Amino acid sequence: MWEADAMSTALRYVGLDVGGTTMKAAVIDDEGIAAPAVSLPTEAHRGQEAGLERMCETIRAAVSAAGMTMDQITAIGVATPGIMDIAAGLIVDPPNLKPWKNVQVRGHIAEVFQKPTAFQNDANAAAFGEYWIGTGRDAHSMVLFTLGTGVGGGIIIGDQVIEGRHSHGGELGHMRIQLRGGRLCGCGRLGCLEAYASATAVVARAREEVATYTGSTKLKELLQSASGEEFSSRTIFDAAAHGDELAEKIVDDTAFYLAVGATNMMHSVDPDLILFGGGMIAAGESFLNRIRKHVHEIALPIPAERCEIRYASLGSDAGFIGAAACARQLIHRQRASSK
Amino acid sequence: MWEADAMSTALRYVGLDVGGTTMKAAVIDDEGIAAPAVSLPTEAHRGQEAGLERMCETIRAAVSAAGMTMDQITAIGVATPGIMDIAAGLIVDPPNLKPWKNVQVRGHIAEVFQKPTAFQNDANAAAFGEYWIGTGRDAHSMVLFTLGTGVGGGIIIGDQVIEGRHSHGGELGHMRIQLRGGRLCGCGRLGCLEAYASATAVVARAREEVATYTGSTKLKELLQSASGEEFSSRTIFDAAAHGDELAEKIVDDTAFYLAVGATNMMHSVDPDLILFGGGMIAAGESFLNRIRKHVHEIALPIPAERCEIRYASLGSDAGFIGAAACARQLIHRQRASSK
Repeated sequence: MWEADAMSTALRYVGLDVGGTTMKAAVIDDEGIAAPAVSLPTEAHRGQEAGLERMCETIRAAVSAAGMTMDQITAIGVATPGIMDIAAGLIVDPPNLKPWKNVQVRGHIAEVFQKPTAFQNDANAAAFGEYWIGTGRDAHSMVLFTLGTGVGGGIIIGDQVIEGRHSHGGELGHMRIQLRGGRLCGCGRLGCLEAYASATAVVARAREEVATYTGSTKLKELLQSASGEEFSSRTIFDAAAHGDELAEKIVDDTAFYLAVGATNMMHSVDPDLILFGGGMIAAGESFLNRIRKHVHEIALPIPAERCEIRYASLGSDAGFIGAAACARQLIHRQRASSK
Repeated sequence: MWEADAMSTALRYVGLDVGGTTMKAAVIDDEGIAAPAVSLPTEAHRGQEAGLERMCETIRAAVSAAGMTMDQITAIGVATPGIMDIAAGLIVDPPNLKPWKNVQVRGHIAEVFQKPTAFQNDANAAAFGEYWIGTGRDAHSMVLFTLGTGVGGGIIIGDQVIEGRHSHGGELGHMRIQLRGGRLCGCGRLGCLEAYASATAVVARAREEVATYTGSTKLKELLQSASGEEFSSRTIFDAAAHGDELAEKIVDDTAFYLAVGATNMMHSVDPDLILFGGGMIAAGESFLNRIRKHVHEIALPIPAERCEIRYASLGSDAGFIGAAACARQLIHRQRASSK
């Protein structure tokens, strides 16, 4: 439970998650207890100057919502999407924040608030949030796959976010899982995991399978009666839960593709724990069990047996919680090195 | 240049690499300068007790070859193949060291010599050796693919060998690169990188392609005239270098498969440097350039542009050099934590 009146020397962080449609932030203390979160619209179309101003507004709103003032905040963490230069504190070319280009986020926030400021990719931050206080809290190493419109990822090994030398660490949606003739990904390449296992890909695969399926399936009906937006991956998972054979095949194939992604992480990073997060985990425990079953069939025996596979638990809060975790790490490292 | 008469307080390590046919060891100083290496036959068939004794012999022989006595050695590092429990210091079930099972290597060596003893998987050790004094010496993070009978791997991130929670870190030969209907791997699974890109797989693919190829190719002739052992991946690379079209296709496909493996590492670990080592790199710079070309086509633009792709430089010495590097890390970490 959040307590605004705790002693004023306590460490407190603002975590800010900048998304394509909204920005979300909250004040979080050193133990991971969060004050109420706030959301403001991103409105990227208004340009990057307005975007930076909106980030500052959201941070201030989070501090107010915590019943605090800025001088009670130790550090700030910001998570953003798209292609970044994490070390430089830059958003380079974000597909979901057009027309922004080369936005100096970390420098701006640090300058406005005069606070130590951490900066991280949003999927990496979500993984670090889960690692700090989510399903990964007891893990030493962890890989997160985020299943939404795309497939995001984050890798944590022993307190370290594997952000990569070129800020492309954990771009797990673009792991190539098919040599040739693979499905076309949104990134323009062929055979990426995302082209098979994102929510968008599940819908696209269902449309294709319905078109050639000769048996009886509810999906055909649903697809014809629904407008574009209504026929979602949720529709397909629901139909599978009600025993529709084609829907079950599509869901099981999806679990298989994710098992291939998980297996490739088990045979490279070999973490304690692999997590799946994002909207698609609404599919529930039976979907997770399908992933586990396929992993048992395709991974080497020891990691197949011992690596835990679970769902993430922080939902859409993982991003700002992880951003705060990055700010916290910045402070703890500064303190450790100055001793 | 190795100098046995350097001051006796200097740090010196024995690195031992236990292979399926030979054990190789040398004394190496803290700067990575190695005394002459020694080799003894492994003779795994004589059993694990004899094997442990042979490890001790090889270590003693290396110390003699350095013109030193055991009391001038600071620590020992041992690298072994197969399924291991690295944290426990055990070889569990090594396919190349039959009939050994559950061999307590680290404990035995430490007890016999009364020295701090490090223990590591041989492919991880090779990567750490390259990272210490080989092609990776200026890298912060590095991934090594070793191309021999199988495909081995090792991942280093900032001085840390990614050995994994279940000792399966860097098992890159078993990365699945084909969803379904993939080639059968020696591990019994389908679609592993090793089933496409090991020297053995190159030969197997060549045999298959020759059988159905209707054009003119030297490979057909070579295959018919050569006995089993003579038709090696080397034969195929040579034929490609002499312009044989089918051989060129096989070599280019191999480069493509390795590029897929490299790309998947760029989109997960995103290292500074990707190295290829092992017997197959005798194919030379043109093969490396083919791998680079395919990476440019299939990886995301920033890592494709910036991640370096090179050959390893320590050859078959990488294993014992890396084993010594692990011993050195053990000592440096002990010293750092005791200050």
